[in-house]
Amino acid sequence: MIHIFGHKSPDTDSTTAAIVYSWFYNEILKRPATAYVLGEPNREAQYVLERFGFKQPEVLKELESGSEVILVDTNNPEELTVSLSDAKLIGIVDHHKLAGSISTSEPIHVTMKPVACTSSILFMTFERYAVVDKIPKNIAGLMLSAILSDTLNFSSPTTTQEDRDIATQLVKITGENPDELADKMFDAKSDMTGMSPRDILLADSKVFDMNGKKVRITSIETVKPENVLALDTQLIESAKVIKTEEQLNGFFIFVIDILKQESNLIMIDDFELEVATKAFSAPTPKGNCVILPGVVSRKKQIVPSIEGVVA
Amino acid sequence: MIHIFGHKSPDTDSTTAAIVYSWFYNEILKRPATAYVLGEPNREAQYVLERFGFKQPEVLKELESGSEVILVDTNNPEELTVSLSDAKLIGIVDHHKLAGSISTSEPIHVTMKPVACTSSILFMTFERYAVVDKIPKNIAGLMLSAILSDTLNFSSPTTTQEDRDIATQLVKITGENPDELADKMFDAKSDMTGMSPRDILLADSKVFDMNGKKVRITSIETVKPENVLALDTQLIESAKVIKTEEQLNGFFIFVIDILKQESNLIMIDDFELEVATKAFSAPTPKGNCVILPGVVSRKKQIVPSIEGVVA
Repeated sequence: MIHIFGHKSPDTDSTTAAIVYSWFYNEILKRPATAYVLGEPNREAQYVLERFGFKQPEVLKELESGSEVILVDTNNPEELTVSLSDAKLIGIVDHHKLAGSISTSEPIHVTMKPVACTSSILFMTFERYAVVDKIPKNIAGLMLSAILSDTLNFSSPTTTQEDRDIATQLVKITGENPDELADKMFDAKSDMTGMSPRDILLADSKVFDMNGKKVRITSIETVKPENVLALDTQLIESAKVIKTEEQLNGFFIFVIDILKQESNLIMIDDFELEVATKAFSAPTPKGNCVILPGVVSRKKQIVPSIEGVVA
Repeated sequence: MIHIFGHKSPDTDSTTAAIVYSWFYNEILKRPATAYVLGEPNREAQYVLERFGFKQPEVLKELESGSEVILVDTNNPEELTVSLSDAKLIGIVDHHKLAGSISTSEPIHVTMKPVACTSSILFMTFERYAVVDKIPKNIAGLMLSAILSDTLNFSSPTTTQEDRDIATQLVKITGENPDELADKMFDAKSDMTGMSPRDILLADSKVFDMNGKKVRITSIETVKPENVLALDTQLIESAKVIKTEEQLNGFFIFVIDILKQESNLIMIDDFELEVATKAFSAPTPKGNCVILPGVVSRKKQIVPSIEGVVA
């Protein structure tokens, strides 16, 4: 049985890609596969699962020796909570930069493309197998949701023409109104009730090694930035604790206003302020933040800019 | 301008994949690309280029900073003669195990599949772009040759049904008789005239790090093993020099009889004999060799067996 899963702190793309690819393995390739998650999916992903009638995949605790594994939406072992060392990795489908830290003893399937969303790559696979007309409505719903999530309803600079074209086809299959779906998803993602400052900080957060410097970058995508920014002193306090615990050189907290298409970068300390001033042109200070107009993508805008200064 | 090239000591698959993919980039994607080789192609590859009317691609000496690069038939920087550190890697198409030693700062195109031949993967890409009917006869000839080369005319255990199906389509496009083409290719590959023992040893040879042990494995595919085996004492002498120069733990020289489907493993020293005895069931000694019936594939049979003992 093949185990299919994405990165820890599962978001919509990671969670749905595991389910969608499992469908393909089970129903099209006729190879038994099960989707897992490496933790509780975020609220947007939970909304999407519920809307399209899926149960949350089981949280994978450990991999038995020799288990067949396919990774989706990551190619970086540091983004996993389980070790691949005794597993048999047979495939990777991803749209992130090459981490370059997984080697195998045999050739495997790897498909990586610079598109916004893992589901777009899965759709291209379905095209090559000529099974687009076999995609069930609810599976197509997951795929469309993943594209809307990763492209911020086509407003993120990560969006490619391929993502747009595939979304158009998925809209036809599902009959969904993408704007209405995106609004509901972003509302769900913006709901922080009951989350501790630490939960909020680590929900969508990645650690990068930038030329020996350890940098954590958190991306809080929301349609209600004011709700997050109201907690800024608690977030800063909690971030300082995490920074010490993890011996981080820098911790950058981006509150991304999906509607206004700008970032509020919360300042933890002098290091972050210094890097931000060099990395982004004309940041406008506002309280404990600087405002960065047009900055919405960690992958395409934030990481390259910060890496350019830090590394 | 995109630079497309395969591994050093270019064989038929590596040489032709660069040309075939350049055709696709130039003619289909309308993005200027040039095929290069990282050394003199082997005699089989030279025969194939001549038969289908192609000049040998230029040997790439160095990459200017920022040059766009696509790797074909390798994902291992140790198999290159140029450094990628200042280049901009934008794609990888390969069918070898993941080396895990290339990282990038942005997402790139990666397509790897466990099939026999890089050209089979390129053909699948052409299918997805619906341009199979646009493949020129001579480009299809290169692709068919690559499949015949890497599958040893469909006799190697690396051969998959996908390679067979794609070859069938390429036979239709080219009108070639695959058996006749394969015979001519294997004759060309078996021609060792004018080659020094060192040339013969390094023509198709790879170095592997097996759990800290450095092992070189040479694969001499031939329809005339007697011509190679007649040189065994000179090959052993030369191999011992290389072994010392490169501080190898082991140097395994497989003379692969394409027609009889067996390997003659030339013994350099006690280490190789000891490993071979454990790695392969019932090897039959014959002169300076042991004979290994059915062993023809470095990737699928030789490397896993030796790695299982050495590592």
